[in-house]
Parts: sequence; C-alpha cells; structure tokens
Amino acid sequence: MGAINPRHIVAARDLRKRYCRRTQVGASPGTLVADPKAQVSTVYLVSYDTSQFFEKNDLSAEEISVLKGRGKNLWIEVVGLANVTIIQHIGAQFGMHSLAIEDVINTHQRPKMEAYDHQIFIVIRIPSMASGVKLRQLSILLGNGFLLSFRDDVDEYLNLVRDRIRWEIEEFRQHGLDYLAYTLIDTVIDSYFPILEAVGEDLERLEEAVILHANDEQIYEIYRLRCDLLDLRRAIYAQRDMVKSLINDDSRLITDYTKIFLRDCYDHLAQLVDIVDAELEIASSLLEVCHFFMSARMNDVMKTPTLIATIFMPLSFIASLYGMNFDRSVSAWNMPELGWRYGYPFSLGLMAVCGIGMLIYFLCKHWIKPPKVKRRR
Amino acid sequence: MGAINPRHIVAARDLRKRYCRRTQVGASPGTLVADPKAQVSTVYLVSYDTSQFFEKNDLSAEEISVLKGRGKNLWIEVVGLANVTIIQHIGAQFGMHSLAIEDVINTHQRPKMEAYDHQIFIVIRIPSMASGVKLRQLSILLGNGFLLSFRDDVDEYLNLVRDRIRWEIEEFRQHGLDYLAYTLIDTVIDSYFPILEAVGEDLERLEEAVILHANDEQIYEIYRLRCDLLDLRRAIYAQRDMVKSLINDDSRLITDYTKIFLRDCYDHLAQLVDIVDAELEIASSLLEVCHFFMSARMNDVMKTPTLIATIFMPLSFIASLYGMNFDRSVSAWNMPELGWRYGYPFSLGLMAVCGIGMLIYFLCKHWIKPPKVKRRR
Amino acid sequence: MGAINPRHIVAARDLRKRYCRRTQVGASPGTLVADPKAQVSTVYLVSYDTSQFFEKNDLSAEEISVLKGRGKNLWIEVVGLANVTIIQHIGAQFGMHSLAIEDVINTHQRPKMEAYDHQIFIVIRIPSMASGVKLRQLSILLGNGFLLSFRDDVDEYLNLVRDRIRWEIEEFRQHGLDYLAYTLIDTVIDSYFPILEAVGEDLERLEEAVILHANDEQIYEIYRLRCDLLDLRRAIYAQRDMVKSLINDDSRLITDYTKIFLRDCYDHLAQLVDIVDAELEIASSLLEVCHFFMSARMNDVMKTPTLIATIFMPLSFIASLYGMNFDRSVSAWNMPELGWRYGYPFSLGLMAVCGIGMLIYFLCKHWIKPPKVKRRR
Amino acid sequence: MGAINPRHIVAARDLRKRYCRRTQVGASPGTLVADPKAQVSTVYLVSYDTSQFFEKNDLSAEEISVLKGRGKNLWIEVVGLANVTIIQHIGAQFGMHSLAIEDVINTHQRPKMEAYDHQIFIVIRIPSMASGVKLRQLSILLGNGFLLSFRDDVDEYLNLVRDRIRWEIEEFRQHGLDYLAYTLIDTVIDSYFPILEAVGEDLERLEEAVILHANDEQIYEIYRLRCDLLDLRRAIYAQRDMVKSLINDDSRLITDYTKIFLRDCYDHLAQLVDIVDAELEIASSLLEVCHFFMSARMNDVMKTPTLIATIFMPLSFIASLYGMNFDRSVSAWNMPELGWRYGYPFSLGLMAVCGIGMLIYFLCKHWIKPPKVKRRR
Amino acid sequence: MGAINPRHIVAARDLRKRYCRRTQVGASPGTLVADPKAQVSTVYLVSYDTSQFFEKNDLSAEEISVLKGRGKNLWIEVVGLANVTIIQHIGAQFGMHSLAIEDVINTHQRPKMEAYDHQIFIVIRIPSMASGVKLRQLSILLGNGFLLSFRDDVDEYLNLVRDRIRWEIEEFRQHGLDYLAYTLIDTVIDSYFPILEAVGEDLERLEEAVILHANDEQIYEIYRLRCDLLDLRRAIYAQRDMVKSLINDDSRLITDYTKIFLRDCYDHLAQLVDIVDAELEIASSLLEVCHFFMSARMNDVMKTPTLIATIFMPLSFIASLYGMNFDRSVSAWNMPELGWRYGYPFSLGLMAVCGIGMLIYFLCKHWIKPPKVKRRR
Repeated sequence: MGAINPRHIVAARDLRKRYCRRTQVGASPGTLVADPKAQVSTVYLVSYDTSQFFEKNDLSAEEISVLKGRGKNLWIEVVGLANVTIIQHIGAQFGMHSLAIEDVINTHQRPKMEAYDHQIFIVIRIPSMASGVKLRQLSILLGNGFLLSFRDDVDEYLNLVRDRIRWEIEEFRQHGLDYLAYTLIDTVIDSYFPILEAVGEDLERLEEAVILHANDEQIYEIYRLRCDLLDLRRAIYAQRDMVKSLINDDSRLITDYTKIFLRDCYDHLAQLVDIVDAELEIASSLLEVCHFFMSARMNDVMKTPTLIATIFMPLSFIASLYGMNFDRSVSAWNMPELGWRYGYPFSLGLMAVCGIGMLIYFLCKHWIKPPKVKRRR
Repeated sequence: MGAINPRHIVAARDLRKRYCRRTQVGASPGTLVADPKAQVSTVYLVSYDTSQFFEKNDLSAEEISVLKGRGKNLWIEVVGLANVTIIQHIGAQFGMHSLAIEDVINTHQRPKMEAYDHQIFIVIRIPSMASGVKLRQLSILLGNGFLLSFRDDVDEYLNLVRDRIRWEIEEFRQHGLDYLAYTLIDTVIDSYFPILEAVGEDLERLEEAVILHANDEQIYEIYRLRCDLLDLRRAIYAQRDMVKSLINDDSRLITDYTKIFLRDCYDHLAQLVDIVDAELEIASSLLEVCHFFMSARMNDVMKTPTLIATIFMPLSFIASLYGMNFDRSVSAWNMPELGWRYGYPFSLGLMAVCGIGMLIYFLCKHWIKPPKVKRRR
Repeated sequence: MGAINPRHIVAARDLRKRYCRRTQVGASPGTLVADPKAQVSTVYLVSYDTSQFFEKNDLSAEEISVLKGRGKNLWIEVVGLANVTIIQHIGAQFGMHSLAIEDVINTHQRPKMEAYDHQIFIVIRIPSMASGVKLRQLSILLGNGFLLSFRDDVDEYLNLVRDRIRWEIEEFRQHGLDYLAYTLIDTVIDSYFPILEAVGEDLERLEEAVILHANDEQIYEIYRLRCDLLDLRRAIYAQRDMVKSLINDDSRLITDYTKIFLRDCYDHLAQLVDIVDAELEIASSLLEVCHFFMSARMNDVMKTPTLIATIFMPLSFIASLYGMNFDRSVSAWNMPELGWRYGYPFSLGLMAVCGIGMLIYFLCKHWIKPPKVKRRR
Repeated sequence: MGAINPRHIVAARDLRKRYCRRTQVGASPGTLVADPKAQVSTVYLVSYDTSQFFEKNDLSAEEISVLKGRGKNLWIEVVGLANVTIIQHIGAQFGMHSLAIEDVINTHQRPKMEAYDHQIFIVIRIPSMASGVKLRQLSILLGNGFLLSFRDDVDEYLNLVRDRIRWEIEEFRQHGLDYLAYTLIDTVIDSYFPILEAVGEDLERLEEAVILHANDEQIYEIYRLRCDLLDLRRAIYAQRDMVKSLINDDSRLITDYTKIFLRDCYDHLAQLVDIVDAELEIASSLLEVCHFFMSARMNDVMKTPTLIATIFMPLSFIASLYGMNFDRSVSAWNMPELGWRYGYPFSLGLMAVCGIGMLIYFLCKHWIKPPKVKRRR
Repeated sequence: MGAINPRHIVAARDLRKRYCRRTQVGASPGTLVADPKAQVSTVYLVSYDTSQFFEKNDLSAEEISVLKGRGKNLWIEVVGLANVTIIQHIGAQFGMHSLAIEDVINTHQRPKMEAYDHQIFIVIRIPSMASGVKLRQLSILLGNGFLLSFRDDVDEYLNLVRDRIRWEIEEFRQHGLDYLAYTLIDTVIDSYFPILEAVGEDLERLEEAVILHANDEQIYEIYRLRCDLLDLRRAIYAQRDMVKSLINDDSRLITDYTKIFLRDCYDHLAQLVDIVDAELEIASSLLEVCHFFMSARMNDVMKTPTLIATIFMPLSFIASLYGMNFDRSVSAWNMPELGWRYGYPFSLGLMAVCGIGMLIYFLCKHWIKPPKVKRRR
C-alpha cells in the first residue's frame, strides 16, 4: 500500500464539515450566532459618482449612519463576520430582511439570488485552493442607492475592484451600483478558472503517473480530486442559476446595459460548467483506467514467476526421481538408469528437453515474449 | 471475511419493511386500521392570539367539541396514533376528508401537500438515527382558524414550538396559523442537518479506515450508509416539492409574509439536497475505492510470496539435482561434480548466482523494491 | 459454480417473450387474432343505482342487447378473451373503436388512457408472482351509462368489487360509473404492494446470504430480481402517467368527486415508484457488493495456502540441500556439515529460524493474523 | 480465449460505417451523389379512389408527367436510388425542395418529419437482421393529391400495401393519401417487433449459456447485441418523435381520422421503446453477470489446485527431511529417526497427520466442500 | 505493461489546457490580450451582389474604412488573431460590442449565438485531427450589409466558400449575407463528419485488436479516444443549441429562405449528436470489454501452469518419499519397497496413476480441454 499522506485525510475531514454548521434545531428563524472561527469585522465605505470619489476605512456604526445619505452610489464593504452587532446595525440601517442577515452570518449558504421588495440579495462563493478546494461566501445586498457586501476573508482579487472605481471614471463610475455588483460577481467567477486549471494540471500529472506506474496512492488522489470537483461543480451550477435569475430579474435595480455584461458572465459560467464536467468525466475514467492498469501490472508480475515455477516443476520432479533409493542390487528392474554409463547426461538431457519444450509451448501460446522484445521495453 | 454484526442485518430488515404495510387489497378507500405498534393517543390543545395564550393537555373527545370555538388560533396536537376513534372524531369535527384521515393513520405516506376545499393537508417525515435512519410521519391539517397535527412519537424539537408560542408574542403570536405550520415544517427540516452531519462523519471515518486497511466489513458499512442516504434523499426531494407547492399555493390560507419564510425553508431543502447528493456520490466512489484498495492490498500480499517461491524454485532444483543417485563408479560421466574437490562450494555458488540473479531481475523490473524503501513504509 | 435451478431459466424465457406476440406485420389495423392460450370468455352483467342492484352471469350476445338499456349504471365484465366474436359484438353494441377492440385482444399493451369521443379507454396491468413476476392486462371502457371491462384471468381481488357494489349503498352505489372505474384501478394498483413487499423480502434474504457466504447463485438470483423489478417499474411508471391523464381529463365522464380519489391513487403510485426505485438501487448495489464479497472470500482462500507454501519453500530447500550426495571423502570442503556432531539439530534449527522468521515478517505486514483472532472468527 | 468468428468483426465494421458517407465537405447544399452501391431505380405508379384503381410498373420519366393529373390519389413509388436524374425529375414535377431530394439520395438520414409549404417530408428506417441489424431508409413526400415514396431495397412487407389498396375498398380506398402514409409508417414500425423478438431470444440463449459456462465469446456477443440495440433504440426514439410531430401537425394534409390511427402507431412505438430499453438493460446486466461468472469459475479452477499444492507442501518437506544425508555414524544426534525400528511408518504417520489436519482445517473454513456435495454438482 | 507512446501524453497535455487561458482575474471586461501563439492577421475583403463580384486581399486598416460603403454585401475575413489593433479597428468601424471583440481574441469560447442590437454574433469551433482532436474558433459577426469573420488558422474548406461566391451567381450571390453565414456554419459542421468517421475507424481497429490480443495499451488508447469524443460532443451539442437559436431568431437579419437551410444544418447536427453519442457508448463498452478480455486472457495464462504444477506436486512427493534414507537394515518396517524386486516400476506406476487420475479429474471438471480442441484454437 502506498504511503497516503495523513495530512490529506485531515484536510478532507475539514472540507466536508463546512456544509453542516447551523444554528440549533428549533431556534426561531433569524437567530444570529457568529461562527467561532470568523474574523473581526472591519467596515469600508466607498461613495462615488462620475464627478467624485470618496472612501473611508474602518468605520464605526455611528459613522455609517452619518455617511449613509452622502454620494450617489454608496458601497459598504464588511470584511470579517465576527461582530454580529455591527452587521445587524448596518442591516437595520438599510432595511435588510432578518433572513438575509442570518444568511450573511451563516456562511454555509449555497449561491442564490433572492428578491426582496426593492432589494436583491445575492450569495456567491469565492474559491481558493490549499490542500483541497475551499469555497468562502460573499453576500451582496443591492438596494436603491447602496450596495452592501459581506465576506469573511481578505481576497486579493476583490481588493482590485476599489482601485478600478478610483481610476476608471468613464468605464466604471458613470454606471450605477448594478455594474459594481456585476464587477464583484465577475471577479469571483473569473477566479474559478485558475482553480480548475490547477485541477486540470493535477489530472494530467496523475494521468502520466498512472501510465508509468499505476498504484493505489493515485487512486486516492483521483478520488480526492473528484470530491473537490463535485464541490466546485455544485457551486458553479448554483451560480449559473443565480446569474440567470439576475438576467431575468424585472425589478428596476439592474439596467439593460449591465445585463449584457451579466450575459457575458453567464457565458463564462457555461464555460466553467463545460470544464468542470469534462474534468469530472476524465477523473472518473482515470480512476477506472488506474484500476485496470494496476491489475494489468499485477498480472505481469504474477505471470513470469508462475511460468518460471511451472518450468522448474518437471525438472525438479526428474531430479527427485533419480534421487530415490531403490535397491539396485535386488533386481535389474530397480532404477537401472543409475547404472547406465551415460545415465547422468541422459537425465540432464531429459530435463533440458522438458524445460525447452515448455518454453516453446509458452512462446507459441504468446504467454511469454522472446527476450529481444523484452529488452526493447 | 470480516465479522459483520448480525444486529445490523436485523436493523436493515426492519428498515426496508416500513414502506409496505397497508390496509388489505380490495378494501374500500378510507378504511382505518391502526398500526399494531402505534402508541396511545394523547391530545394537546393550544389556543392563542396576540393578547392571550391558553393550553390544555390530555383532552377527551368531548372537550375538543367544547373548546373548538374558543380563541382565534386553535392548534390541536395528537401524539400517538393507536386510538383511531379519537382521531376520527377530531377529523369529523373539523371536516377532514376521509382520505386525509386514512393518510394520518397509515404512517407510510411520502411527504406531500394536498389542497382540499379551504384546507391544506401536509405530510412530512421526521428523521431520527439509531442503528440506521428512521423516518417517522408528521401530518398537518391547516384549516381556517385551526391547525391539527398528528404524530406517533414524542420528538424533543417539536415540543420546543409550544414554548415559543408561549413566550414570543411579537415574533410568533401576532402571526397566523400558517406561521405555526411553517414553524413545524422548519423544525422538522432543520433536524435533517445533524443526521446528515452524522452520516458525513461516518463516511470520513470509513474513508480513513479504507485507506489504512480496506476490508469487506467497510464495504458492507458503506453499502448500508448508501441505503440510508437513498432513503433520506427520497424524503428530502419529496419535501422540497411539497414546500414548493406551499409557496405556489394560491388559497388564502398562507400569507405572503409566511411565504418569505417558506422560501427560506425551501432554500434549506436545496442545501440538504446538495449535501445528500454529495454524500451519495462520495459513498459510491468510496465503495469503488474500497474495492480497488482491497485488490491492491491482495496483490501486495500475493506478490511477495510468489516472488520468494520463484527464487527458491531453481535453488531447490539444483539441490535435488545433486541429490540424484547415479552410480559414479560405473563411468566418469555420472555426476563427476560429486567427486570434485570443491564440488559442494561450487554448487552453493551456483545457487547464490541463480538467486541473486533473479533478485536483480525482479528489482530491475520494479517488481520488488530495495529493502530501504520497504522499511520506510 | 452454484447449482442454478434450470426451472428458473425456463421461467425467464417465458417472461421476456410476453412483449412480442402481435398480429402479422402488414396486416390492416384492427385485425383480431385471439391469443391461442386465452381462456373461454364469460360475460357478467351488473346494473345498479342507489335504489336497485341487478346482476346476471354468463350472458349470451343476445341478452346483452336486451339488457343494455336497463338500469342507470351498467357494468359488463368479460373474463376470458378467447371468444373474439362475443367481444366484437359487445364492442359494436357500445360503439367501441376498432383499435380499442384490437388492444383488448392483444394483451401486450402498455398501461395507457385514451380518449375517444364520449368514451375513455383504459389499459392497466394486474401483477402476480409465481417464479417471476407476471403482468396481465385489464382493459376498461368507460362510456356514458356503461363500463366494459375485459380480462383474461380470474383475479380474486377484482371479484371483491362486485360484493362492494352489492352491499355498500351509501359509499358506492350513489356514485357513478367513474367511481367504479376508480375502484377497479385502485384495486389493481393496491395489489402491487404485496408483490413489491415480497421482492423486498427476497432482497433482504439475499443480503443476509451474501454477507454470510457470497456465491454465484446469488448473483443470478439478484440479476433475475432486477429483471423483475425493471418490468414492474415500467408498468408502474406507465400507470402513473395514465392516472395523471385521468385526473387532467376534461371530458365530463369523470366527476370532481372521483378525481379526489384518483389523486389518492396517484399518490399510491408515487409511493410505488419510490419503493420500486429504492429496490432497484438496492439490487444494483447488492450485485456489486456480492461480487466484492466473492473476490474478498476468494482472496482469503488464496492467501493462506500461498503463505503456507511460501513458508515451506526455504525449509524444503534446506532439506534438499543436505540431501545432496557430494563425496565427503574427496575433500573437507564437500558438505562438512554432514559430518558435524550436531549437524542434524543444526539443520533443524536453521529451518526453524527460517520458518519463524517468515511467520513474524508476515505478521508484521498484517498478511496473517495471530491465531487468537482467527479463532474468534 | 474463445474463438471469435472473424466474419462477425467484418459485419461490425460494415455496420458502423453506414453513418458517415456524405457529399464532400464544402459542396453546396443540394449536391446529389448517388451511393455507388445503390440499386437501379424502378418507378411504380398507383392511382386510386373509392370507385377506381389503376396501376403501372416501370414507368419512364415522360409517363410520369402524363399520368400526373390522373386519379384522385396518386402514389408514385421509387425502388432503387441509383438513377439520380429520374428522382430529380420526379421531384421537380411535384415541387419537391432540393434539400428533400438530397435527403432521399443520401440514405443516412435519421427518422424525421419536415414540413414544407403544403408538403410533408418523412424519413423512416426499415430494420432488417442478417449478421447484425441493418436500417435502410424509406423517404415519403406527402403532398396535395400525391404521395411519393423512395427506398433502395425491395421489402416484402411494403409490397403487401399495394394489395391492400387493390382489394380493401371500404377500409382503404375511401380514405385519402394520409391514410396511405400512415399505412406505410405502420408497416415499417410493425417490422421492428420481430427484430426485437429475435434479439430477445439471442439474449435468452446467451443468458442460459452464461449460467452454464461463462466465457469471453459470450462477452463479445453481448457487446455486439448491445451495439445493435443502441442502433435500434436511436431509430425507434427518433421515429417516436417523428410520429408525435405528425399527430401535432396542423397542416390540413392529415385528417383527424388518420390521426387516431397515428396515435395507435405512437403507442406501438412507446411499446418498442419499452422493449428496447428493457433489452438494453438486460444486456448491460448480463455483460456484468457474465464477467462475474467468469471470475467465479476462474476462482473455482484456481482454488482446488492451490489447496492440493498446499496440502502436499509439508508432506514433501517431511520426505525431503528424511532424505538428508547427515552422517549417523558421527553422533547419535544425527537423524536417529533413520535408525528407528518404526522410523518409516512413523514418518508416513507424520505425513498423514499433516495432510488430514490440513484437509480438516480447509473443510472447517469452508474452503473445500465434502466430496458428497461435490458429486451432486 | 505495453509501451505507451510518450508523444501521446504530451499531446494530451496540450489538449486539455486549451480551455483555460484567459485574461487576468480582476481585469475589466473587454481587456484584449492576444494569444502569444496567434498568427499574424491578414484581412480579406469580398463584396458581391447578383451583378458584381469584387475581392481584395491583405487590406490595411485604412482601406477597410474606404471600402466599407462599397457593394451590397460586404464580407471581411480576418485570418490570424495576433494583431489586436487591426481587429479592434475593424470592430470599431462596424459598431461591434467590446465583449464581442474580447470573445474574438480569447479563442476559448464555447459555440454560441448572441444577439446585439441589429447584430448577431456567432462562435463556432472548427475541428481538426492530428494526434488528438483540436477545435479552433471561428467568430462571425452578421450585421446589416456586412459580415465579419475571424479565425486564427487557414482552413482549406473555408477557402472554398470564396470560390462559390465567385462562380455561383444563381445559387449564391442572389441571396444575402445570412446565406453566407449559413454557408460558413454548414461548411464547419460538415467537417465534423470525416473526424467522427476517423474516430469510428479507430474504434473498429481497437475492437479487432481487443478481440485478438487485449492489452493495456488499448485501454489507454480507448481512454484517449473517449476524451476526444467528450470534447467533440460538447462542441456539437453547443453548436446544435446555437443553430436552434439562429432558427428561432426573430431579428430581420435572417430570412425565411435561409432558415430552411439552417434547419437542414440543425438536422446534420442531430445526426452528429447521434454518431458521437453512439461512439461514446461504444468506447465505454469497449473499455469494459477490453478489461474483461484482459482478465480472461490472464486467467488462461494462469490456469495451465497452475494445473501443471498441481499434477507434478504429488509425483514429486512420491519421488521424495522414496528418496528418504531410513535404514532398511534396522527393521523390515523401514521402506521395504526399496528392496522389492519391482519397487521402481511400482513407484513409477503409482506416479502414473496419480498423474493420469488428476488429468482425468481436471478434464471432467472442464478445467482443461482435450488436446484436440486446444490444437484447433
């Protein structure tokens, strides 16, 4: 058995549990319990229109109330979900439904789009890869004149969005907050591509390894990759449905201009669906092929010794035969060969005939290959 | 063969039979035959609105008739389904269809939502886990001003609902009976999460066990888990359809306010669908991987002895050869080696050359690994 | 190889052929050829309304013409499909379409519901179990004021329906013929439950047998059960579609009152779908598990002998070694061990060291278990 | 390895290529290239209404122009597709679209129904069975007052249709050409039943063979049957869609009277779908079962020799032991057994104890069965 | 293990990476980065109507602006996608959306049809086969009075289209640019047929090879073919949806005349779907069959030696037995056989009886076949 890395098993355990943490059964809906591993919340505010750009980091609850009215497009970003009271306060300020706030805190939601009165609530999952795929949650509330976004971890790609707002006046600031929502979604979805590319490279590496020397370690690795791909597929499919809902949404929060870009986003998701399905199919085939190669290898290992043993079997028998101690002095019938002049060469010849005869038989049956061919391999 | 626990087999037998008990073929619809294992019925009554809360336990049939008109929202809970007459009496009091009463008694219904005139009849299944998954039935009849609920077992989570009615005036008592129905459904659905989490932990445990030492006991355990998951999936899918029907229901029994909460409930069911499907896929893969690991292990066990036997085969042959009794006195051709001065060392050397030669051949073929590597494993 | 019962094979052959008997290719539609195995036709007549009940058995063709106008609800039941002319005569009397008459005679129709002008033609299949599942055909024609039913075999459950008409005035006779059609359908569908229960018990029995002693007889049995389940599933799915069509039918032949009962019937079919799908999934898993257990058992059988052989290999070699006949008189180099004082004990010790060393190696590798554990098994 | 018939392989090669022959890539649509294997075209004409019947065989292109206006219902049948110009001429006469003519010539179309202005173009595939399933094309153009049909081979069933027109005045000639189209379609579809029945019989034969003596020849046969069934399924499904389209067609070319018959035809196709799906599922299961039986058989073959070898291993060891040549004259320690009075019987007894002990161990482990049971098999 | 060609592995690596190259995550949509492997762009212009035909190769950006107004139907073809500025310039000239231009440059789009205002943007993939399937992108923008097409490679089939425009006045030049778009699509789709035919031939070749001598090289080849087929299937399915969208398009850019041809194109895609699905099913079956045949072969190889070894086992035992050195001089009990007159012939006879007995037993069990049958194979 190959040496399966125990760290991998731990990672797998971690991975699967992420679905299940929830508030206690029987609690009233809207009960808020922060994840004990969540990070301290920091609030960022960006306010912009074509003519101006204003930003402030690390806001307190009061500052939010003050700055709320300011600017045409208000983006409040909460990074870290440990401080439930701040999140609740912000939610209350902007008329967020209690179920939406609950979904922000319980970061095990599947990607979805929910329409409340004059508000759209979006959940997407940000992928990352470190000893197995992880999918963190980004929640977005798009309302009239404001956009709230909540996430637990710092993500390098999402931080680039603020720079784009700052510098891209024509391309960005002249569009509304729906374009900002699109940008956030698009950035997250684009970050699935390098993840799937990495998985694809792993599959290639495994494919080569399987061909060269199939073993059970590879079976476990392919199995783990398959589990990761199943997780990714689930997220990608749900996200595709979510973007579809956004495109079909008939509230006035999303303009036709943005919908063309969302259609592009949907197209990327269709591509992701293609890639993830292809990789899943390849992983499944590879698992099977790996098993086939392992048994082919094993057959190879078993065949040669078995044939060697078979060739020596009659030779040993002949040797044993002439090792018998029948008393030649009693009668001429008892092992006269032992007394022959060429008895020993005769017995050696008999063995040679047996052995070579079997070799030829095995060669004719194609059970063994002539040595030349063997050397070439 | 591993030692399969016979208790498990009995549990499995129990499990599968739960589908099939029904009234006799050919009986007229609406025939009521209590399950011989059903518990004695106890009737609880709760009546509430924003201003008042009234409750009474262990009601007799007459008391129900008296208390029927009282209060705005009337909840009658029947725990234990043995007393068919009481259930029939209650059903008659509230104009319940005979088929609905039959479904209450025959606790093998699949989750469903059925609209009768001015009434909604709901069946959901409460999961529990003890040597295999069990799914008990909760039947709800939501009418104008009353809600009847029927179940056979005491469930700890459902008992919490009455407390919530008693104490949560703002959050609960100001809403109608549709909100109570939602609360019951939500409580049941939330209780699927710990069950699936337990199954997930079993799968993790099995995954580790398979990697360390794959055997046929694990195959049976995974097979049993798969059967359990198939049962759970069936219930979850049917429940999702049922909640969908409730959301789309256009009778006036369910308010828009409650429908937002039912949508949240639907979302939880979508999450459950994701989890149960993922676990099923993992279980199927694991079954296959377990088989692959078992045959890999077996190959490992068979390979080394076979190679050892192959190495000793020619050595034994040489030893047998020089054990032959040809009469050296007859001619110089008969086994002259026996009379050589270094005949014995020569034969030992011949054996050593054979044995080491084969070892090197096997090492070159990668059929055996050098001892260093073996020790590291 | 296990002893496969040849009677089973014959049963299987019978089973699969039932699909294919049809009138000759190229014949005009409506050509009537009775099945050579069909039974002699007997015609029963029941006429009823709330106030009266009239029945007559073994009618001739003329009597039907006479009795046709009599009574509000007329039910003519034909048991045995050999007499094509009688069936044709009855069909003509009630304006039955030629294709419907053809479907009555050719009892290989799949369950279906077909609407003709003012008539509904229904085909359902009655299950029975005797060395494999059999599905016989029941054809129903529901018209205005009459219901014709045709079947080949006597079915005990269907005979109960006439008793219900006779005795249940309130519950039965006050409803129209659509309720009678429902009763016939419901009775047939209910008879699927015991069949599936029997299959479930077979599966349980096989599951236990597989765990205790997997062999190829079980593989064949599971394979046959799977074939039976596939047949049942096909019939159940088609019947579900058929009942769905009846519920959605907008002719006036089926009242809303009956449709509620048909919905209950649909519900039973949904349950049957659940059960048959579950049993199919279990059968498929079991087939795989049985194969896995067989190879696990085989591995077990092969492992111990191989290890025993491996342990004796070097021992035999040592014994052969000292069986060589090198001439000790020629030189001191030739097998001095033979002349040692403790040569024999030394050689025995050498063998013991070899044998025990290999045993320990195998134990460390977990290839064999210490004898204690073995005894517990 | 079994002796796979090389003729089968050739048949398979033939079979699969039939999809792919087409006009050159880049050619303009409507380019007509006759299949080099096509037969010489013969044109038949039938013209009929209730009062008259006229037929003429082997028409030339001019005669068609002349006879075109004659009779109410004109059926022109072209058998053999080699003469492209005649087909083109007929097509031009009746205003056939160039794409439809191309589809007539390229006989690799899938079954389909295409509506052109005032014309319906139908493609169906006629099955035949000779060392693998073959599906030949029948193209039908139904227009106002004419029906053109094109096929390459003579089909015995289709020739019967003309006889029916000639003799069945009431049943046939009083209906329009849509009824003729239905008759042609129905005749073709009915000819699938004997084919599937033959495949079913092959499956039964293989099932019996697998149970008696599973080998790799059967695997290949099942694999080939599965390929045939996949081809048939594809044709049947496409034909079902085609008949569905005809039933839903709202051009006036098909009367309601004929649509009832087409519905019957659709029903037959649904039956065919059931049969072909059932047979495919049985073939897939059988392939798996055959593999399982083969490995069960192999295990059986390997088990007994392995156990025999294991029993003889220690016996041979004991024999070798007392064949050692230690010098008994040197010390009393050297093989004193050889000098015992009952040394030889003692050694034989030792061997007997070893051998019988192992036999009993194997019997207890159920690795071998007592000889009685073996004989029964 | 067979000798897997390492060049194949490299090809596979190349193949799978084609999905994933994209602009950097977080970049604004519409960012244009040319593929470093793209070819230098060359611009071709064709302008035609019924009366005239004008063509110019290797245009510069300015010439495009000048020639833009000229002619009724303007087709600008860009071959080679390295010069982003030229493509951007052309796009700007014709009012192409920035997302469409991005899709032209990033040649990893899936086949799709996107409607912009007064423009239709189409992506299709051109298949080619050289050590694995490659799918290159062809982008088409159909606007009012112009058609732009972009592709990276020279394709022989597409070059034929310009010749058709030049020479086919009636058939081609009298139709609009939508017919040109159809022609391009049809040409690409027709080029899938020879590719699938080649894959089908590979499958046939592999099928024969598997039957004659199943080995692991074939497993790898079938696995690679399956991967190729999955790629092709994905492209074909997406293209079918795309053509469907074009047929259902209600902009005025596509005439009803062209839609009939597109329907033909859709039909070809349906045929391709049939072929690719059939080939995938065959490839999957073949993989399984190959594994079955390999294990059947292996069984064959293992069976004979095992049986030979089993036959020699008791013979060797007897020989060893009479090689024991018990001292016959001590007592008459010690190996009296050695002193028998016919001791040696007796022992030889014993061996013969043993050996022939076992042979007969094996023959009766059908474990070995009589030599005659063996020779025939």
